[in-house]
Amino acid sequence: MLKTYQYDQLSLEEIDELILRNTDPNNQIQDTVEQIISKVKEDGDDALKQFASRYDQIDLEQLYLDEGEIEALANSISREQQRALEIAFQNIYKFHATQLKKERTIETMPGVTCWREVRPIEKVGLYIPGGSAVLPSTLLMLGVPARIAGCKEIVVCSPPQKDGKVNGFIAYCLKLLQVKKIYLTGGAQAVAAMAFGTASVPRVDKIFGPGNQYVTKAKSLIQSLTQVSIDMPAGPSEVLVIADETANPAYIAADLLAQAEHGADSQAVLVSTNETLISNVNEALANQLRSLPRAALAQKALENSYAVIVDSLENALLFSNKYAPEHLIIQSDQWKKMVNGVLNAGSVFLGHLTPESVGDYASGTNHTLPTSGYARSYSGVSVDSFVKKITFQQLSSTGLQQIGSTVEILAELEGLQAHKNAVSIRLSDLND
Amino acid sequence: MLKTYQYDQLSLEEIDELILRNTDPNNQIQDTVEQIISKVKEDGDDALKQFASRYDQIDLEQLYLDEGEIEALANSISREQQRALEIAFQNIYKFHATQLKKERTIETMPGVTCWREVRPIEKVGLYIPGGSAVLPSTLLMLGVPARIAGCKEIVVCSPPQKDGKVNGFIAYCLKLLQVKKIYLTGGAQAVAAMAFGTASVPRVDKIFGPGNQYVTKAKSLIQSLTQVSIDMPAGPSEVLVIADETANPAYIAADLLAQAEHGADSQAVLVSTNETLISNVNEALANQLRSLPRAALAQKALENSYAVIVDSLENALLFSNKYAPEHLIIQSDQWKKMVNGVLNAGSVFLGHLTPESVGDYASGTNHTLPTSGYARSYSGVSVDSFVKKITFQQLSSTGLQQIGSTVEILAELEGLQAHKNAVSIRLSDLND
Repeated sequence: MLKTYQYDQLSLEEIDELILRNTDPNNQIQDTVEQIISKVKEDGDDALKQFASRYDQIDLEQLYLDEGEIEALANSISREQQRALEIAFQNIYKFHATQLKKERTIETMPGVTCWREVRPIEKVGLYIPGGSAVLPSTLLMLGVPARIAGCKEIVVCSPPQKDGKVNGFIAYCLKLLQVKKIYLTGGAQAVAAMAFGTASVPRVDKIFGPGNQYVTKAKSLIQSLTQVSIDMPAGPSEVLVIADETANPAYIAADLLAQAEHGADSQAVLVSTNETLISNVNEALANQLRSLPRAALAQKALENSYAVIVDSLENALLFSNKYAPEHLIIQSDQWKKMVNGVLNAGSVFLGHLTPESVGDYASGTNHTLPTSGYARSYSGVSVDSFVKKITFQQLSSTGLQQIGSTVEILAELEGLQAHKNAVSIRLSDLND
Repeated sequence: MLKTYQYDQLSLEEIDELILRNTDPNNQIQDTVEQIISKVKEDGDDALKQFASRYDQIDLEQLYLDEGEIEALANSISREQQRALEIAFQNIYKFHATQLKKERTIETMPGVTCWREVRPIEKVGLYIPGGSAVLPSTLLMLGVPARIAGCKEIVVCSPPQKDGKVNGFIAYCLKLLQVKKIYLTGGAQAVAAMAFGTASVPRVDKIFGPGNQYVTKAKSLIQSLTQVSIDMPAGPSEVLVIADETANPAYIAADLLAQAEHGADSQAVLVSTNETLISNVNEALANQLRSLPRAALAQKALENSYAVIVDSLENALLFSNKYAPEHLIIQSDQWKKMVNGVLNAGSVFLGHLTPESVGDYASGTNHTLPTSGYARSYSGVSVDSFVKKITFQQLSSTGLQQIGSTVEILAELEGLQAHKNAVSIRLSDLND
């Protein structure tokens, strides 16, 4: 049973309270992560081997798998599974390939020419979780845009499995991405290895990927310890479903449970104009929950979840925009009219036949998305995340004559004489 | 005299050492900033007034200026100065207006429709420094893209001047940007106010703007304390000039000094294929330095600067890409051929007549740029910085039938049964 609130009976403070999540700063894990980071910084590969032995219960001689080993593992999965991964790869590729466009060159004044050019981030590090669930889909979601961006070096880290390898699904995705090596290290130590570099693991410029609290803490720490940047702060996954009387309660329940099975700290929120629908959803939740292998996790997540009754779809959007969900599903015949009203969300699923899980795998959109309200200011991962846009400008003598006095006046009013001189010294030559 | 190194005599370690800058983690200021932040969080406006009195030597009754006060201040500057600010505004507007484009909708499979839509970040906070130098240009560089993006609420903070107001240049820029209020608070307390909100200062979703070490530290702290994000980590400003025998040593000296006058911690690097040029630049530096009002600062910055002699422009680019400068000036007749080789930089100034100071003010490009090597993974501020791109997807029944089994297989291989169910439950209805 979802806890249920009446939107029009909530005060602003109560709404603020409801939309708050994951404010625990995790200080209890900070010490552990700091120790892991300094150990990796100091002992490099040796530290990574010790951590593999402690956390992954495997003694590694070599910290990576090479092309031959990857190939063999990739061949171990069924053709049907390979085919599914290929289709996901193709759809993700198709959608992301259109994200970078050449921009126009602008002449802001005669002879003052300005433009932006896109350059790949040279070395990127992708962290692929491999603990309670191994997520080959995440490798595609990060690797495909990295390839499209043209990143020179794609470093992939994932914790070794019990046999000291990675599973065949990960291996097959590496093959699709033409990545010829994978580093067998997980958790905070993988993040530290990519941030500082070790004898085996190359140092990168930016680190991507979801992970548990240790990985997340490590990403946030290395961001302030080094000049390595990160994709975004990550938190537990979440979904918000907006539904009216046209929605199917069984579909809603299935979508809420798909979210809930991620982990006990996941959150699933239902916002509905229809009170009967909510009780039907509760019934369907109870039915569907029974047969789930991860029912215990999902049950815990549901305790952390809730429903809100609203009097209109406008108010549903209002609440959703305040919540800023990672995933927003709109199960209403009115979905078309509602698109413009979606202001804060990571990825949006429209209509009755668009479950969130299609976006997790294969519709083509990215599944690495801002959680915990970060959708107010962050976008999900895209090709943009793997490039920089560098501005260029070039002035002809006409250009400098056109703009020169403006720059001189502005430099002077800011009290920056040398800024003015850099223009004046050139202008005086032109005017000679 | 710039310290001078021979590129081909440097080891990889020595190059790494040379390109390193600003690694001081500033722990000595962390305590102060943490105290400021918690005081603002607890005491709100009262804390801001106390800090204004302590740091800005002014007792404020009201923490903002309203439209009438801004109008009066804006009218106090000369028409020539107003005109220069207008031209800067127009050029910045022209260049930034082209940065957002509608993207194509993609059908990744028949009936699987995916697209991205741009949404402004609703509430943005702009920090405009006002200590040793007041920088109206920064207000334009942040305010113009915020306006183009369509941000609903633009909150501007700047420290009060001795008269309890802001200067007329800032006021005129507010008028150009149609921002009707400015909050009189500076330093770490301004950042904290925008991150938590006070009775006077609204809470925002993202904070932009350069500042001293206290501002920078506050930005990095609130990023982990709240869900407010920031534009980028900021550090002292820097320039790298690539020059060959076609360059004018006086122009180079002027550009290096324009950088150096920002502050003692600024860095100016000259990379040249020509040793004679370097000694001529040293001579010009000595000459031009004498007449500068901020000569003492600039002199200190030059002690922190250096020249590198390279044997080719290719190697000059190699060094520059390793350094990843905030500003790159290429003073060579060969500039056109070199554009494609620029891989890491914030903003690039091409040819002999394009001093960096034109980009600071009026060419149209943004001057809020990644420093300290962050240009390896960050872009400068643009309209992109003020928006999110939200992905949308919608499946028709054909779409779900096309993609359904792929999602089922992938969910199953990741062990996520509820993800599979969300598809299966819909597919079985379709197939009935």
